Amino acid sequence: MYGSESFSRLVEGFRKLPGIGRKSAERLAFHVLNMPLEEVRIFSEDLLDARKKIRHCKECGALTETDLCTVCADSGRDHSTICVVKEVQDMSALENTGEYRGVYHVLGGSISPAEGVFPEDIRIPQLLKRIDDTVREVILATPTDVAGQATAAYITDELQDKVTVTRIAYGIPVGTSLQYADEVTLAKALEGRRGIKE
Amino acid sequence: MYGSESFSRLVEGFRKLPGIGRKSAERLAFHVLNMPLEEVRIFSEDLLDARKKIRHCKECGALTETDLCTVCADSGRDHSTICVVKEVQDMSALENTGEYRGVYHVLGGSISPAEGVFPEDIRIPQLLKRIDDTVREVILATPTDVAGQATAAYITDELQDKVTVTRIAYGIPVGTSLQYADEVTLAKALEGRRGIKE
Repeated sequence: MYGSESFSRLVEGFRKLPGIGRKSAERLAFHVLNMPLEEVRIFSEDLLDARKKIRHCKECGALTETDLCTVCADSGRDHSTICVVKEVQDMSALENTGEYRGVYHVLGGSISPAEGVFPEDIRIPQLLKRIDDTVREVILATPTDVAGQATAAYITDELQDKVTVTRIAYGIPVGTSLQYADEVTLAKALEGRRGIKE
Repeated sequence: MYGSESFSRLVEGFRKLPGIGRKSAERLAFHVLNMPLEEVRIFSEDLLDARKKIRHCKECGALTETDLCTVCADSGRDHSTICVVKEVQDMSALENTGEYRGVYHVLGGSISPAEGVFPEDIRIPQLLKRIDDTVREVILATPTDVAGQATAAYITDELQDKVTVTRIAYGIPVGTSLQYADEVTLAKALEGRRGIKE
């Protein structure tokens, strides 16, 4: 922008973030210029701070500032139940429900040989290593896309002789009308029906 | 997010930016965690750097790292022609054309008594003060909305006895088909027609 080096650098910085084009980057940069200096200082420090401090949990692959994430380090959680998810974001969503008391395993991707992603490229070997006599159940919560299902199938094959393998239920989202559900979800909802007094 | 203070702080920082909700903020924060440390360090420094260094040009209100912006400080520019814009972004857009050789005046807003914005609340007194014998023309490039037009009318009233006041042309954007233009633009395009060999 007409000679301001530091402005151009800021715009470039924003442009490197996902989903932010040139126009958005400029709008964000202009906004920063109008923010109170102290707020910009805090944001600037938080950026570097988060990047420096946060790493993957040695046990489950979640994000943490220490060796073990807060879930793995919590002796009050049920360590005999492991829920397998693709991304840290999925784990975050499940944690937000407040319903799950087990632990997690974050794969960090899905098996997709066409894209050169094989079981050993995601955190599957680490998962297999975690399975011992203390583990009762592995709950698969991988995505419903082809790669996610292939991943679930691979893990099932590897583990079903050693431990109970289950998958989370597919069905009609609560609060949604049947007429708005897609056919695949409806079919899954029928297939997954349960006795009312089971 | 399950106990990571620094992650939550980073998400909050992103959420304060315009047009970024909770989901986007989380996505951006996760992206930062996967960026090379050095890139995050540079972005973090650029944020603070831009905010600290950039201020308003004493003369025209544009952004600058010195007392005068590069346009006002450029003796090669035509200082007898002042183009009045609402925002620094508008000036940036005009500069990108590479066609304009005059200088600018950035108002920083539009007159809107209903919202409590009067001429002295935007950079209009500073504009009036700039008009002396050396100024030949003031080009109005304020927005086409009601407040922008009220602002243009006010400036015209104040200046038309002292200097030539013009406004940029409204019309069909180059490369656009007539059928996609809105009625107001079409009417303005007709009204603003010019002789082919003028």
